Amino acid sequence: MAQMKPRTLSGFLELLPAPQQQLERILETLRETYALYGFTPLDTPVIEAADVLLAKGGGETEKQIYRFQKGDSDLALRFDLTVPLAKYVALHYGELSFPFRRYQIGKVYRGERAQRGRFREFYQADIDIIGDGKLSVLNEAEIPAIIYQTFSRLGLKKFQIRVNNRKILNGFYAMLGLAAQAGDIMRTVDKLDKIGPDKVRNLLTDDVGLTGDQADEILRFMAIRDDVLPALEAYRGRNETFDTGLDELTAVVAHLADFGVPADHFAVDLTIARGLDYYTGTVYETLLPDHPEIGSVCSGGRYDNLAGHYTDKALPGVGISIGVTRLFYVLGEQKLLNPDLPTAPADALILPMTADLAPAIRLATELRAAGIRTQLYTEEKKFKAKMAYADRLGIPYVLFLGEDEIAAGTVTCKDMASGEQTHLSPAETVRRIQAGLAEKNRGPVILG
Amino acid sequence: MAQMKPRTLSGFLELLPAPQQQLERILETLRETYALYGFTPLDTPVIEAADVLLAKGGGETEKQIYRFQKGDSDLALRFDLTVPLAKYVALHYGELSFPFRRYQIGKVYRGERAQRGRFREFYQADIDIIGDGKLSVLNEAEIPAIIYQTFSRLGLKKFQIRVNNRKILNGFYAMLGLAAQAGDIMRTVDKLDKIGPDKVRNLLTDDVGLTGDQADEILRFMAIRDDVLPALEAYRGRNETFDTGLDELTAVVAHLADFGVPADHFAVDLTIARGLDYYTGTVYETLLPDHPEIGSVCSGGRYDNLAGHYTDKALPGVGISIGVTRLFYVLGEQKLLNPDLPTAPADALILPMTADLAPAIRLATELRAAGIRTQLYTEEKKFKAKMAYADRLGIPYVLFLGEDEIAAGTVTCKDMASGEQTHLSPAETVRRIQAGLAEKNRGPVILG
Repeated sequence: MAQMKPRTLSGFLELLPAPQQQLERILETLRETYALYGFTPLDTPVIEAADVLLAKGGGETEKQIYRFQKGDSDLALRFDLTVPLAKYVALHYGELSFPFRRYQIGKVYRGERAQRGRFREFYQADIDIIGDGKLSVLNEAEIPAIIYQTFSRLGLKKFQIRVNNRKILNGFYAMLGLAAQAGDIMRTVDKLDKIGPDKVRNLLTDDVGLTGDQADEILRFMAIRDDVLPALEAYRGRNETFDTGLDELTAVVAHLADFGVPADHFAVDLTIARGLDYYTGTVYETLLPDHPEIGSVCSGGRYDNLAGHYTDKALPGVGISIGVTRLFYVLGEQKLLNPDLPTAPADALILPMTADLAPAIRLATELRAAGIRTQLYTEEKKFKAKMAYADRLGIPYVLFLGEDEIAAGTVTCKDMASGEQTHLSPAETVRRIQAGLAEKNRGPVILG
Repeated sequence: MAQMKPRTLSGFLELLPAPQQQLERILETLRETYALYGFTPLDTPVIEAADVLLAKGGGETEKQIYRFQKGDSDLALRFDLTVPLAKYVALHYGELSFPFRRYQIGKVYRGERAQRGRFREFYQADIDIIGDGKLSVLNEAEIPAIIYQTFSRLGLKKFQIRVNNRKILNGFYAMLGLAAQAGDIMRTVDKLDKIGPDKVRNLLTDDVGLTGDQADEILRFMAIRDDVLPALEAYRGRNETFDTGLDELTAVVAHLADFGVPADHFAVDLTIARGLDYYTGTVYETLLPDHPEIGSVCSGGRYDNLAGHYTDKALPGVGISIGVTRLFYVLGEQKLLNPDLPTAPADALILPMTADLAPAIRLATELRAAGIRTQLYTEEKKFKAKMAYADRLGIPYVLFLGEDEIAAGTVTCKDMASGEQTHLSPAETVRRIQAGLAEKNRGPVILG
């Protein structure tokens, strides 16, 4: 037969079974946690009409998009989950109830230049709360709780949720008479972490054209790290937008403890701006203090107008997004994925030792009825090869069923980690395996 | 702002939240059941290199495929999950352990002419067991158990798994000296259900060119419905392939009870052939006797050569596939999706009745910690509008927290279905909701 060398496209993650199981655990935790906060799962097509998907336009996006003709249709693959959400809410507006809380976990496509750790196909895991005309600030206050629960349930201990409010920034720059330059200033201030305050000051004066006093005032503001709210109160009364932003930020901070977010996992960070033309209120980033190079693993914010390209309805919202594929990749690189959690396709492997397979099959049926993921190994191989199979896959329990066991009504069960063997009834063996699995599955998915 | 009318492409299923929840339950049940039988989840890219995906060629497929250029790359969207599996196993052969058991649930793409109930993007849910060189027939015997568990766990009561063996058909036609015409004959016999034996006989003699005796012999064979195995034994000894097929079919039938498949959910059906150039042993179909128009909802079979287009390795296997999107669509059309299962985004909606939201937020945190999917409703709306929101979404419990409740340390909890209100402590309210949810979630996903 004429053969083609098999290959997977570069920039497309294709995992072996064990890491795939690790990724599945992460996706499952995200689904569970998002659902706990009253978000409904949504699934929209991967392919959309190109003119619908690109209604907003935008240069970088358009260059990266996978766009093609099929028959007479001009089609494109979604490049995020926000535009499909905007389309969905505008299209189904009359059939939805607001506030509309949805989560979507799905693949998106960007034809970026392929490089290590950059993906052309990747999972995003988004939640958004969309209001009809208005949306209470309490929704913004709830988001840090969702971020905290999500990463805590994944096992992560050291992470910090950082928030800011765009109205505070816009109001502050307006106070200084710099409203027109606000975009350039935010882009420059965003570099503080990377290049430090001195170089940022140079850029602000030389490139953005601020006076030295203005630059100093901005850097003093950005340096506020402790007791941020009292420090911001000192600016109150000078700009209405600023005051509104400060009220919102105060509301977000006020309920953290009630929402179950520990103070040490939260900080106000005035340097955060997140995208310049979309967010209008609270903005969020989530950092791993021990791994600053990873950047924000969960970001988002409040916006005023989700679907202005599709409808006249005012649809304010707040949302966050986790770039799951990239997160999974960097966690793997940093050895932060717990290697001790089971990744085997089965919890138990049954090795029949008699010609008549009926007893082994009945045992498999009994184990499965008890919720134990079970494989029957019936290939003609040497005993050693069968054990090697269980070992390579990391199957935690191997069960032997020979003439002696069948006569005695028992099963020999070997714990592959400890080497310990038991000879118990099938029902007792089930309980032993269940107890053992509960122990083995107890650990966190993410370390650190 | 310039606006674009939002739309979703025809042939692409985009569900409202309530039916989406129904679909999610089905997908979750498939994942759980497949895992119980020792299959590992796999996820391959939606986009593949076109030459890799089309290595096998084939006219219909090539016409339907979504294929496009991106830069210098000739790309295509997967049209099934079998070709990506073949590529995966050939590519990662050295890193996999055999038998390799994987499930994959994912979207595939076929640019078919759009018509009612036909989808261009749809979910397939596949399992396959791949052997390295050889694969025990017991894997074929296990497949009916997986089909039975899958549909039983979905709640379906009336369905029948039908099996046949391609070696029996090929051997039988060889006995009659009709090996060369076997393909044409099978295509004709496949019409028995639709057009009946008389018209099939006419086609066999007039179009395929058989003698009347040959056609009668074939129709007699196909009419064997009861005590099939003893009837087939009468043909033993005349053709080696037939005898092997009969041995395999006997092995599949022998262990049904041990695998937990009730006899009334199973039948041998000699008319089943399934695709002509791929399957080589046991073949499977699954029918709903009350809804023959739906056709087979789960099909597959044994094949000898998974990845001949990519590798010289002999990779025999057996697999089945469920076309989930189509199944979901026809179940909905036939009113077979249980409307009584909760589809709300939340189990509980908390309505704070005081200006201070702290007690309501703490209650939400407590409910969520107990695993109850909870939404806090904090929009400024009239009481009636808030209740209407819960009602429209089908949220089963609404919790009120006013001054009186806070003073008394209680919560007022209304069961929206019964109208019954309780005034209990938060912990007691949690237990009441948990018990109620267990009851409300008890029903099957699929009726009938």
